[in-house]
Amino acid sequence: MNAVAKTFSQEGDYKIADIALADWGRKELDIAEHEMPGLMSIRRKHATTKPLAGVRVTGSLHMTIQTAVLIETLKDIGADVRWASCNIFSTQDQAAAAIAATGTPVFAWKGETLEEYWDCTLDALTFTLPDGTLTGPQLVVDDGGDVTLLIHKGYELEQGDDSWVNSASGSHEEQVIKNLLKRVAVERPGYWTRVVADWKGVSEETTTGVHRLYQLAEQGKLLIPAINVNDSVTKSKFDNLYGCRESLADGLKRAMDVMLAGKVAVVCGYGDVGKGSAASLRNYGARVIVTEIDPICALQAAMEGYEVNTVESTLGRADIYVTTTGNKDIITAAHMQAMKDQAIVCNIGHFDNEIQVDALKALPGLVHTNIKPQVDKYTFANGNSIFLLAEGRLVNLGCATGHPSFVMSNSFANQTLAQIDLWANKDSYENKVYILPKHLDEEVARLHLEKIGVKLTTLTRDQADYLGVPVEGPYKPDHYRY
Amino acid sequence: MNAVAKTFSQEGDYKIADIALADWGRKELDIAEHEMPGLMSIRRKHATTKPLAGVRVTGSLHMTIQTAVLIETLKDIGADVRWASCNIFSTQDQAAAAIAATGTPVFAWKGETLEEYWDCTLDALTFTLPDGTLTGPQLVVDDGGDVTLLIHKGYELEQGDDSWVNSASGSHEEQVIKNLLKRVAVERPGYWTRVVADWKGVSEETTTGVHRLYQLAEQGKLLIPAINVNDSVTKSKFDNLYGCRESLADGLKRAMDVMLAGKVAVVCGYGDVGKGSAASLRNYGARVIVTEIDPICALQAAMEGYEVNTVESTLGRADIYVTTTGNKDIITAAHMQAMKDQAIVCNIGHFDNEIQVDALKALPGLVHTNIKPQVDKYTFANGNSIFLLAEGRLVNLGCATGHPSFVMSNSFANQTLAQIDLWANKDSYENKVYILPKHLDEEVARLHLEKIGVKLTTLTRDQADYLGVPVEGPYKPDHYRY
Amino acid sequence: MNAVAKTFSQEGDYKIADIALADWGRKELDIAEHEMPGLMSIRRKHATTKPLAGVRVTGSLHMTIQTAVLIETLKDIGADVRWASCNIFSTQDQAAAAIAATGTPVFAWKGETLEEYWDCTLDALTFTLPDGTLTGPQLVVDDGGDVTLLIHKGYELEQGDDSWVNSASGSHEEQVIKNLLKRVAVERPGYWTRVVADWKGVSEETTTGVHRLYQLAEQGKLLIPAINVNDSVTKSKFDNLYGCRESLADGLKRAMDVMLAGKVAVVCGYGDVGKGSAASLRNYGARVIVTEIDPICALQAAMEGYEVNTVESTLGRADIYVTTTGNKDIITAAHMQAMKDQAIVCNIGHFDNEIQVDALKALPGLVHTNIKPQVDKYTFANGNSIFLLAEGRLVNLGCATGHPSFVMSNSFANQTLAQIDLWANKDSYENKVYILPKHLDEEVARLHLEKIGVKLTTLTRDQADYLGVPVEGPYKPDHYRY
Amino acid sequence: MNAVAKTFSQEGDYKIADIALADWGRKELDIAEHEMPGLMSIRRKHATTKPLAGVRVTGSLHMTIQTAVLIETLKDIGADVRWASCNIFSTQDQAAAAIAATGTPVFAWKGETLEEYWDCTLDALTFTLPDGTLTGPQLVVDDGGDVTLLIHKGYELEQGDDSWVNSASGSHEEQVIKNLLKRVAVERPGYWTRVVADWKGVSEETTTGVHRLYQLAEQGKLLIPAINVNDSVTKSKFDNLYGCRESLADGLKRAMDVMLAGKVAVVCGYGDVGKGSAASLRNYGARVIVTEIDPICALQAAMEGYEVNTVESTLGRADIYVTTTGNKDIITAAHMQAMKDQAIVCNIGHFDNEIQVDALKALPGLVHTNIKPQVDKYTFANGNSIFLLAEGRLVNLGCATGHPSFVMSNSFANQTLAQIDLWANKDSYENKVYILPKHLDEEVARLHLEKIGVKLTTLTRDQADYLGVPVEGPYKPDHYRY
Repeated sequence: MNAVAKTFSQEGDYKIADIALADWGRKELDIAEHEMPGLMSIRRKHATTKPLAGVRVTGSLHMTIQTAVLIETLKDIGADVRWASCNIFSTQDQAAAAIAATGTPVFAWKGETLEEYWDCTLDALTFTLPDGTLTGPQLVVDDGGDVTLLIHKGYELEQGDDSWVNSASGSHEEQVIKNLLKRVAVERPGYWTRVVADWKGVSEETTTGVHRLYQLAEQGKLLIPAINVNDSVTKSKFDNLYGCRESLADGLKRAMDVMLAGKVAVVCGYGDVGKGSAASLRNYGARVIVTEIDPICALQAAMEGYEVNTVESTLGRADIYVTTTGNKDIITAAHMQAMKDQAIVCNIGHFDNEIQVDALKALPGLVHTNIKPQVDKYTFANGNSIFLLAEGRLVNLGCATGHPSFVMSNSFANQTLAQIDLWANKDSYENKVYILPKHLDEEVARLHLEKIGVKLTTLTRDQADYLGVPVEGPYKPDHYRY
Repeated sequence: MNAVAKTFSQEGDYKIADIALADWGRKELDIAEHEMPGLMSIRRKHATTKPLAGVRVTGSLHMTIQTAVLIETLKDIGADVRWASCNIFSTQDQAAAAIAATGTPVFAWKGETLEEYWDCTLDALTFTLPDGTLTGPQLVVDDGGDVTLLIHKGYELEQGDDSWVNSASGSHEEQVIKNLLKRVAVERPGYWTRVVADWKGVSEETTTGVHRLYQLAEQGKLLIPAINVNDSVTKSKFDNLYGCRESLADGLKRAMDVMLAGKVAVVCGYGDVGKGSAASLRNYGARVIVTEIDPICALQAAMEGYEVNTVESTLGRADIYVTTTGNKDIITAAHMQAMKDQAIVCNIGHFDNEIQVDALKALPGLVHTNIKPQVDKYTFANGNSIFLLAEGRLVNLGCATGHPSFVMSNSFANQTLAQIDLWANKDSYENKVYILPKHLDEEVARLHLEKIGVKLTTLTRDQADYLGVPVEGPYKPDHYRY
Repeated sequence: MNAVAKTFSQEGDYKIADIALADWGRKELDIAEHEMPGLMSIRRKHATTKPLAGVRVTGSLHMTIQTAVLIETLKDIGADVRWASCNIFSTQDQAAAAIAATGTPVFAWKGETLEEYWDCTLDALTFTLPDGTLTGPQLVVDDGGDVTLLIHKGYELEQGDDSWVNSASGSHEEQVIKNLLKRVAVERPGYWTRVVADWKGVSEETTTGVHRLYQLAEQGKLLIPAINVNDSVTKSKFDNLYGCRESLADGLKRAMDVMLAGKVAVVCGYGDVGKGSAASLRNYGARVIVTEIDPICALQAAMEGYEVNTVESTLGRADIYVTTTGNKDIITAAHMQAMKDQAIVCNIGHFDNEIQVDALKALPGLVHTNIKPQVDKYTFANGNSIFLLAEGRLVNLGCATGHPSFVMSNSFANQTLAQIDLWANKDSYENKVYILPKHLDEEVARLHLEKIGVKLTTLTRDQADYLGVPVEGPYKPDHYRY
Repeated sequence: MNAVAKTFSQEGDYKIADIALADWGRKELDIAEHEMPGLMSIRRKHATTKPLAGVRVTGSLHMTIQTAVLIETLKDIGADVRWASCNIFSTQDQAAAAIAATGTPVFAWKGETLEEYWDCTLDALTFTLPDGTLTGPQLVVDDGGDVTLLIHKGYELEQGDDSWVNSASGSHEEQVIKNLLKRVAVERPGYWTRVVADWKGVSEETTTGVHRLYQLAEQGKLLIPAINVNDSVTKSKFDNLYGCRESLADGLKRAMDVMLAGKVAVVCGYGDVGKGSAASLRNYGARVIVTEIDPICALQAAMEGYEVNTVESTLGRADIYVTTTGNKDIITAAHMQAMKDQAIVCNIGHFDNEIQVDALKALPGLVHTNIKPQVDKYTFANGNSIFLLAEGRLVNLGCATGHPSFVMSNSFANQTLAQIDLWANKDSYENKVYILPKHLDEEVARLHLEKIGVKLTTLTRDQADYLGVPVEGPYKPDHYRY
């Protein structure tokens, strides 16, 4: 039974669960390095040139073992790094400890409150210049866009627009952010303006965070150049798809030890995350029903032999629900009340609003039983119960340890290349959203082949000319879908 | 045992194998219509408006049952159609007969010579005006780009550039085309110039043909607007992938009746066609080895559990070879000599140059045995034999009947929408390559859902606003990969 | 379009479709021999000892290319062979021609009437002694038990029990048999008694035929020793399972060219044949519903992720029906009337009574349309149609060419070993049903490993002692289920 | 990070890790009951008759949540139960606590030493009569045969045969048992003879334990009737196959968080456990190589598309090794030295001698690093390392929580029916090994169908007569393999 960190240790410039876990974390880091050839290769390549030498980098990204290897890669190529997690449940405490033990400031533990979470984000943002001045990062590694949101909202407030900060509506989490910004406004006048002045760019790796960035850019509000790491092929078609194919079942198993064979499972959404999730459940012998709004994705699901239907049509016959959409209100409180007794409900999309957790908790007559951390049973007035995992947050990170190292090496190699690219082009990039060029995408893939014994074929010159591509690539037009 | 058509019947304006097959063809057309809801829906939608009323359309596309439904759809919305196949082996003679019987000019039979093939293409191109003047099509439906090639080369010649026509090098097929053009130059002076004057556009559906179009456009030589139908999601991610997943094994089975379980199969190329081919063979219990030049596709294959290796590494241990690359010289004569005795070699990429058939036939000491149409055994001096299917041409169309109707309904709905679009925009489009807008892509998918019982979920207004998309779509950014 | 043989050629002691097909058949036989290492190895082993030297053997087994290799194996080890098919649609005419051309009497063509079928069975049974006396086989290779039935019924009649022959009830086929027996009684008095006197045994390879044998044995009516070849592991767990996994889709594709992805398919029965059938359809992307009476098999289906439901529950939503049960009246006429328009109905169990074909044809208002041989459309008064394949007989043999060679080599190696065993033990075996000993079962498997590159591990003496098994096997207790 | 229990609490008649875990255990028991319809149905059926009323039952079976439901079922139908685990790592401490809290004596914690393990086994065996006399169980539930072994060896000693107890050879564990027996001989003279006098039977559920029983029976040394639960179809074809398909990956993930996609995995043995293990790894995208001694199982593996090769052939190219054979010395120390750096080695067969752990540890120059409980890294003199999971014991129980509840409900329903059957037939059964009759096997399956929504078809009387089976079953001959 994993313990929820109720407190944190803070001997140095970090807030973590327990620095004594550092040794264990370091052993797992050693293992992970063997599984992350992309990052290790980047370290070797830039060992002497140090392209991020002295650059202040803030990361807001699940503080796992894999992320620890990313952090040490960024440091290895010169960066001055501070880190927070981007989810209250996703930290592996031994990973945070191993990083803290090396003197890198890290602010993350498994089981933060929302208030603690946003304080950690601020801590990770806050660099101190030699003269004691508080400043911010020059580059941001973002996952879900929380750092980007915080800076933009803080800057907006300092620009005199306090409409959002003073608005009444919004979720509990939104209120936490508003309170934080009001506090900073008092404690650090002009802070966000100084931060923005130095900020040169952000790389973002989630579908959801990227969506936010495109919206900002369309509205003309984006303050810095951004690189959309998510849409590198070696990110979205690997991490999202193959990562979830491994980590969803892992989360379900560690949380519930449930037999998947013979169960009816509903996967809401058939994007890359949904595709990986559905494949995993089917492979275990579950009968999977997919829900979709997009006719193309729906037709793909049908071609793979899935029933495609609405959530409503599954109530009473499905045992497991997984949301993967990036949208909100996918599983409503009313849905949950109508489910089969003992149904399991979880989310593997970025945000926790896919499932109406607040509305669930507000149902009259509801009885709550905590089974163990991140596993809660809710019993309705009608006598039926459901199990909600990780309070509706990412089940693979909340109930297991997230995606395995090898696939994250692809994502994080993209992140690292994006950081290098942003810094190298800091004087030329505009405040819009860029995608890494295809030759880098292919390079990331190439770095991972040897580890798993792949032997590539090489084009002859004659064949390359016939295709009209360079022998060494890139090989595909930009619109190619893989 | 299917007979090879040695002659053709030509009572009216057609050249086909046997008009007596028309009844059978019509029965199969009736069945296919039920499986092609996309085309049937387009017929109903445009039943009265007839957007292609009187437009001269030439099609060069495998003359199968599915294509017959496409032809009748084009006619139904007003077009004046002439048709040829785009492959010497791909015609279903009963389909050609059924079309001929309705008075639509069609020039295609299973087992044409190359000379007959290109004559048929010219026949399909040649419209006669009421005054007897020979002219060409206003729109072209192309598959592999043969019609487009012929017109461009003919026009080039009439423009005074006879370098290509008089060049000595090239394959046998190239020489056939050159001879044809020289003959036309004599028989129909100025013909190609008249054709080009009226030609308003082409829609092309293969990876290979599209590649040719982009090359022409880059060189500034493209004479008309073109629509890249291949890269509609509902084409390349369906026809190429799911079509091949069904038709490759069909071709192998009808040709060889071979047990696939337990065999080692090599799939050259892991694009959409390769992905479908590999999945099919694995599903039968074959052990699949993938060859790739592109590190991203190679990594995808590895993530799916395939061994990725070179052709050379498989010689002597693999039983079946399938080329899917769109490139040439994938399986060389030297490869074939070194293969395991009784290996089966076939191609499911567009052109027959993926396998070095000419070089094979030129090997000293080679003994050829025809087993049945489209199945040939070649025995080497070392005593080993290989089986070559469909003479290296598309095995699914040469040895079976190509992709099934339902998936072709997606491709052909795109073709039809592209034809309508080209005509509607004939005055505004430039001579470049267009892709159909995403809302049409989604529309094609939508037309196919009811037939297979898919129930879509509808966004609430609130959810749509959260995502920043219209309730009715389109739902994804253009770079989304599905 | 395959032609139905309306007549047969009978130059010598055979009745087949066309002796001119012999060359083609021989080429396919050459190919098949490479895929049938079990049979070829048995030929080599017994090349000089000829254990069946001079033994009269009648075979009643689908006259395919694979069976032709079996026939030539039996001849190679000494037998005097006569052959008929065991299904009116299952003959490959080129295979029959190749066999006839070698002088082996064969009586089989694709598309026999039932009268012709039973006459062929009698022809295959009828050996002529040098003195002109008609006699029967000493050994029988049976598939479905038709030869065994005929001899038993004929003998019963000659023993004075004419109750069955003169009974009025029964199917059309039953009446055909009765008429035949009455004719033989007139033409060949005492014939069956002479046949039984010489008959030393039968080997039977179907679940259905074996079931009949056990029933006869239980009733004390079995006239000869029998070997249950079906329950050799290398038969039922290979031919039934992996054979159907390949041949069901082959039959569906050659008959209907239908897209399987996205379809709802119902597989009635989840024994070995059902397991193979369901796996195949799912692998193509169909959504499979299984029907079962046995709770264990039903639970297996559920664990594999299939919906398990009744036929009734699927009416109106399923596109394809496949019966695999060995039972009768699985798909009734009433079921067919209630199916979705254009549903496809077929059978891959041994007998054609799984589907109520006679009751279907008797429905008032039914309209019949033959699409092509073995593909019939029936349109109901309500306007809906269904497609019935192979008139309800084995779809893989009626619409395609049955199981591929490699898996049949396992089954037929068992048949051959059983024939040798029956003859060797003709003086000791009782009139009951035997199963081949496990060491022969393992031997059959062993003969097939090299062809597909399998490398076995060998037990050390120490390991064998630990397990308590011989180093060279057999390795498992008799009740082991594989 | 799970803690290893270093001590145990013993307030009452139990030895467990921590009684404070009882509440958590009870919550998990509540969940498990919903997933174990077979056991719950047996409880309901025998609620009043209590067929085991007052019967002393000792269980030696992994002390998991699922086993706790079994224990409470046995108690519910009247038994007086004492329990130990059958593996030093397999106890879930919360399950043991929940059972202890109800007053049932249980002796088990995660991470016992071998000495503690065998003491616990003795504790579980030792019932005390009201007069204070120590006695033993009347029935035994065994898993791997340790209780059966201990009683047989103790009895042998008391019968005057001390050759085994005083023999010098044998593993460390063997010596522990010998020491225990010598101690008991001193402390409890005549104890084993009294135990045997009352002992009425054992039900055993593993392939390995059953194998031991058949050997004892063959040698005429079996002291009691035994029921082979393993070979109930609803045990071996479900627990062994589908259980491992879920729990192997669970163990690997919780231990190593390793990406399985793209890895080369070797599964030693292709019995039911191997089949489930190989399927699971392949489903994750690993490339699986199978090793086998049995040609039939090897051919099955090949038909499923696995490479079948020797362990030796995989050294240097495989990443993961899993033993499933029931044999010993499958992975030798020499194998491990030659493996790829960072290879993972684990066992899912019953005993830990499949991997040569002792020989590994004795290698000169070996460096041992414990990563976390049940995960150890061994670094060889050549610099390479391997990871050994659960010290070579069952990886699914050592590193995860074993098989999920639903499949264990099948196994344990068989166990419970076997216990009832043994007691009911205690006066008639001989000292040999029985298998449960097929109607009970079918009954177990039937009890699990409703939970997962399976709808069975019912035979008509006419169909049942045609098949020659009762309408209500059993449906299959005993030799049927499923």
